[in-house]
Amino acid sequence: MKVAILMGSDSDFSVVKGAIDELNKFGVESVVRVLSAHRTPHEAVEFVMNAEEEGIELFIGCAGKAAHLAGVIAGVSSLPVIGLPIKSSTMDGLDSLLSMVQMPSGVPVATVAINGSQNAGLLAVQILSLKYPELRVAFKAFKKQMAEEVHLKNAKVQEMLNA
Amino acid sequence: MKVAILMGSDSDFSVVKGAIDELNKFGVESVVRVLSAHRTPHEAVEFVMNAEEEGIELFIGCAGKAAHLAGVIAGVSSLPVIGLPIKSSTMDGLDSLLSMVQMPSGVPVATVAINGSQNAGLLAVQILSLKYPELRVAFKAFKKQMAEEVHLKNAKVQEMLNA
Amino acid sequence: MKVAILMGSDSDFSVVKGAIDELNKFGVESVVRVLSAHRTPHEAVEFVMNAEEEGIELFIGCAGKAAHLAGVIAGVSSLPVIGLPIKSSTMDGLDSLLSMVQMPSGVPVATVAINGSQNAGLLAVQILSLKYPELRVAFKAFKKQMAEEVHLKNAKVQEMLNA
Amino acid sequence: MKVAILMGSDSDFSVVKGAIDELNKFGVESVVRVLSAHRTPHEAVEFVMNAEEEGIELFIGCAGKAAHLAGVIAGVSSLPVIGLPIKSSTMDGLDSLLSMVQMPSGVPVATVAINGSQNAGLLAVQILSLKYPELRVAFKAFKKQMAEEVHLKNAKVQEMLNA
Amino acid sequence: MKVAILMGSDSDFSVVKGAIDELNKFGVESVVRVLSAHRTPHEAVEFVMNAEEEGIELFIGCAGKAAHLAGVIAGVSSLPVIGLPIKSSTMDGLDSLLSMVQMPSGVPVATVAINGSQNAGLLAVQILSLKYPELRVAFKAFKKQMAEEVHLKNAKVQEMLNA
Amino acid sequence: MKVAILMGSDSDFSVVKGAIDELNKFGVESVVRVLSAHRTPHEAVEFVMNAEEEGIELFIGCAGKAAHLAGVIAGVSSLPVIGLPIKSSTMDGLDSLLSMVQMPSGVPVATVAINGSQNAGLLAVQILSLKYPELRVAFKAFKKQMAEEVHLKNAKVQEMLNA
Amino acid sequence: MKVAILMGSDSDFSVVKGAIDELNKFGVESVVRVLSAHRTPHEAVEFVMNAEEEGIELFIGCAGKAAHLAGVIAGVSSLPVIGLPIKSSTMDGLDSLLSMVQMPSGVPVATVAINGSQNAGLLAVQILSLKYPELRVAFKAFKKQMAEEVHLKNAKVQEMLNA
Amino acid sequence: MKVAILMGSDSDFSVVKGAIDELNKFGVESVVRVLSAHRTPHEAVEFVMNAEEEGIELFIGCAGKAAHLAGVIAGVSSLPVIGLPIKSSTMDGLDSLLSMVQMPSGVPVATVAINGSQNAGLLAVQILSLKYPELRVAFKAFKKQMAEEVHLKNAKVQEMLNA
Repeated sequence: MKVAILMGSDSDFSVVKGAIDELNKFGVESVVRVLSAHRTPHEAVEFVMNAEEEGIELFIGCAGKAAHLAGVIAGVSSLPVIGLPIKSSTMDGLDSLLSMVQMPSGVPVATVAINGSQNAGLLAVQILSLKYPELRVAFKAFKKQMAEEVHLKNAKVQEMLNA
Repeated sequence: MKVAILMGSDSDFSVVKGAIDELNKFGVESVVRVLSAHRTPHEAVEFVMNAEEEGIELFIGCAGKAAHLAGVIAGVSSLPVIGLPIKSSTMDGLDSLLSMVQMPSGVPVATVAINGSQNAGLLAVQILSLKYPELRVAFKAFKKQMAEEVHLKNAKVQEMLNA
Repeated sequence: MKVAILMGSDSDFSVVKGAIDELNKFGVESVVRVLSAHRTPHEAVEFVMNAEEEGIELFIGCAGKAAHLAGVIAGVSSLPVIGLPIKSSTMDGLDSLLSMVQMPSGVPVATVAINGSQNAGLLAVQILSLKYPELRVAFKAFKKQMAEEVHLKNAKVQEMLNA
Repeated sequence: MKVAILMGSDSDFSVVKGAIDELNKFGVESVVRVLSAHRTPHEAVEFVMNAEEEGIELFIGCAGKAAHLAGVIAGVSSLPVIGLPIKSSTMDGLDSLLSMVQMPSGVPVATVAINGSQNAGLLAVQILSLKYPELRVAFKAFKKQMAEEVHLKNAKVQEMLNA
Repeated sequence: MKVAILMGSDSDFSVVKGAIDELNKFGVESVVRVLSAHRTPHEAVEFVMNAEEEGIELFIGCAGKAAHLAGVIAGVSSLPVIGLPIKSSTMDGLDSLLSMVQMPSGVPVATVAINGSQNAGLLAVQILSLKYPELRVAFKAFKKQMAEEVHLKNAKVQEMLNA
Repeated sequence: MKVAILMGSDSDFSVVKGAIDELNKFGVESVVRVLSAHRTPHEAVEFVMNAEEEGIELFIGCAGKAAHLAGVIAGVSSLPVIGLPIKSSTMDGLDSLLSMVQMPSGVPVATVAINGSQNAGLLAVQILSLKYPELRVAFKAFKKQMAEEVHLKNAKVQEMLNA
Repeated sequence: MKVAILMGSDSDFSVVKGAIDELNKFGVESVVRVLSAHRTPHEAVEFVMNAEEEGIELFIGCAGKAAHLAGVIAGVSSLPVIGLPIKSSTMDGLDSLLSMVQMPSGVPVATVAINGSQNAGLLAVQILSLKYPELRVAFKAFKKQMAEEVHLKNAKVQEMLNA
Repeated sequence: MKVAILMGSDSDFSVVKGAIDELNKFGVESVVRVLSAHRTPHEAVEFVMNAEEEGIELFIGCAGKAAHLAGVIAGVSSLPVIGLPIKSSTMDGLDSLLSMVQMPSGVPVATVAINGSQNAGLLAVQILSLKYPELRVAFKAFKKQMAEEVHLKNAKVQEMLNA
């Protein structure tokens, strides 16, 4: 179970961290690389082309603004590609989102919410769970725990209301 | 290899057809249902809850406007959910896109382009290919064929230019 | 006179508080729950289905991003549903607004402004006033008081101008 | 059971018709007026001020572009006001929507989808059903019928798939 | 030479101040009122209807969100109405702008930039200058002075570059 | 009473015609020129600089896309400038609107709705009416007639409802 | 003088034709290729890498939706890259524009208007004119001719007005 | 090798500085002027008209809001014009971007990202490199160095992950 997480810049790391953490929690190995579709195009392509042989099973591409990285990965590889659009200092993330999600026919990118790093990690787990049933079991436990947390939050709100 | 395609209305069928056709080409069985998150919420939830037992391995949720269907599926099921936002008569699809892709942490929807039905089907194939290696082989062939078609289109353009 | 206020997350509480306060001022009882359309879908549906029997007369659904909660309530219940879109960290609330207001035919959500919690509470009062004439009387008094406050604000501005 | 439907221009009638029809189906009387917040402000205000005495129980305000009509009604009356934003020839209805839904604190407008005329009518029915229990019964029947129609649409799609 | 400046809320005062100051500089008298299209509709209309008799020659209407104030003035009065859209806490002023500028045929509002209070004042001066030639002279002097300020700014930048 | 109407291209004429017609109705002379801020910058500036001497009292600048014409006029002249943003084939007029209305401090453009040609003409009449009282009288008559037309439209709708 | 024009799909040809024609008029040779950043990434990169050696002096990259082609070229080549965003069937070209223009630091794309094919060609001519003075001369002649055409359009409008 | 950088206001200097620095690094002389299309239109035009004679080879026009400066330069000069849209306090830079990039046919502006000052400088270098081969060599070195920096950032991220 191995996922490659590529990000266009180390400034994206604080957001991308959420995806790495999520994979860690589920025991999924992640290979993380700062590789830019624009600044290191050849290395990016080379990394992606070799990925399948090195046991990578899917990609998470993280980028902002004219966010091409996920699309470039999807152009080269046949593995599923998750796109994580990063909000930058202008346009509130709309540019990143549209640059990722509006891919042309034939080359899909599975896009999650702007800055939705936890979801990028969880979607990877869900996809891997087709092959690794233990991840399905773990994901179901995660869903239960998430519901439990909502209960706790509800209790907290009730307390605030009664205070 | 079985995918469930849910759409909110039969008026979405002409778009959704592109995803069904793509799955057919790859020999992936699809179960198609018109089921609405809002008009038939109980049946939608029931269908989704039973899906895994009935061999469904992932979902494609297609909806327009306040497009909740994919999110509702993702709330109930642990299977991966692909979201296909449908362009409706106002807002040029932006409402459908944001309603699908901006899911809260914990409940991802793998969103493709507005009206990107072919990509919804292809993304399903890519995800299934983790478990079914023959689909990976077929997808690689598809990518080659797609490149061939670009060559043909290029030839066509050269002809037009020389005419 | 009982209103159910559902919010997707306790992080929405600081905004939602405005609606609760408004109902309190008018003497309308409110039942407040953190219940998520996506994280606790079954409990959300169950709560909504039992609401009418337990004396709930209308709902206020509060959520951000891909804000499905109000729509999910409206799918299950026949009571009127007020939607309060919450501004989150990206897209300035446009995602929440469109996810709430653009509901398909047959399942309306009465949407108020982004973060318009006071108006969510007041709209609830106005709707209840069809059945409870004392609320109509109180609302008219509120409107007068609101006009008085504008007079005071005007006086304050005149002072600033003359200073 | 009487609803006043005000529209800014007779050019909106083809859209507004959907709300009138819906009210008719539920046996709710509707008083329809072309009255403009901008072109006939005094008559609009006068109509709204007299409405409660004449048995009007809620308003539906329909307008496009800088769509002030619903807000003007809400400023004058204490009755609930439903806002129906009409899509015009520019801006795809976003101007109408924002002009209606973004009302300041104290003066809510219950806004439905752009061109969502059926929902404007249904929301009126839901609000009236607080006072008139027979409308609640009828609305529940409507929801069942709507679910039935989804079943029929599903059957139709199955036929198309098997053809 | 008398201009009426109406604002929907005293919270807009810090922005509106820019327009008042500009009028003061040109020696144009301004009557400033906090009057809301929604919270004090009758007083707003009454003020506007009496304005011409009281020597008001044009209006500046300032409001945010669903910014109806300028449009309401324009509906009642035949004097020119300048609209100053105020940026509020959501939607970055787009709601205010569209609510002001997209007025229907027959009822124009002369809209300036979001938070463009200085320009609201200057446009008033330019309009008044049709009748009061001394304002035209003063405005031409203002334009020269503005050019001078650009020269000074340019000098400042040259210094920074040479530093 | 003389107004200069400048348009960037003759393709805008069908829209601009609405402003010319309105001025004609009120007996205001209009000088119409196709002059582009970008294609004929020197002639545009020259025309604008000579305008005041030739009796022009205000400008209407009409342009689409990166609509600079009104701003260029406002930079050169001290006369009031009305901006009429024209909807072009992309971006639904948002580009034209923002390019016109978002003018920097010191150089206002009195912007009307996208394609709001009638309002551009009427605003010109309202501005001229400060100097020419007969236009004020005529504008008040116009407002009455406009209200009459609403009454006729209302009558028409009542007929349709009773049919 | 040789320009390479790459387009993502032959469906873009009708738009791109405008750029080719413009180059032809100025006697600039153009090499046109249908090459996709996503469907034929390796060939696209190969073409771009060899371009400088084959005498290409700048690129025009034309694409729609998640329009990565120009960015991919700019990542690989050191030649200037002009980006021509193509309007597709959703989002009115905003996706194409943002995907092209919002390039990260270090990798600029000189973006022109949505569907602005003539300008893509003219910008190429202007850039080439740094090296080829005859193009500067020709461009100045073009500007004069463009002004002449405005004069003719103005004459046409005068005729229409006098008719 | 001489580039003219014009900015509309000295408040833009902190952003524009990025372009100046970039040109300095490549040894390209820059002439910087605060000159406004609206506040000093005649001087702006005069500067632009004389530029070619004074050895200027291209322009960078920097402006915010209704950002006309680059377009005005392009209207007057035959030299290539790079447009740098500056983000201001409202609309997140969308107004600046659209005002610059959506230029009409015949008058292109080579637009870079919102606040993309480094790219404005680099694009200038790339354009100049057509004439000055040493800049091409330097740009290729810059691209290599940029790739090196990505490697270092990648190393930094690996360290953080292993920490």
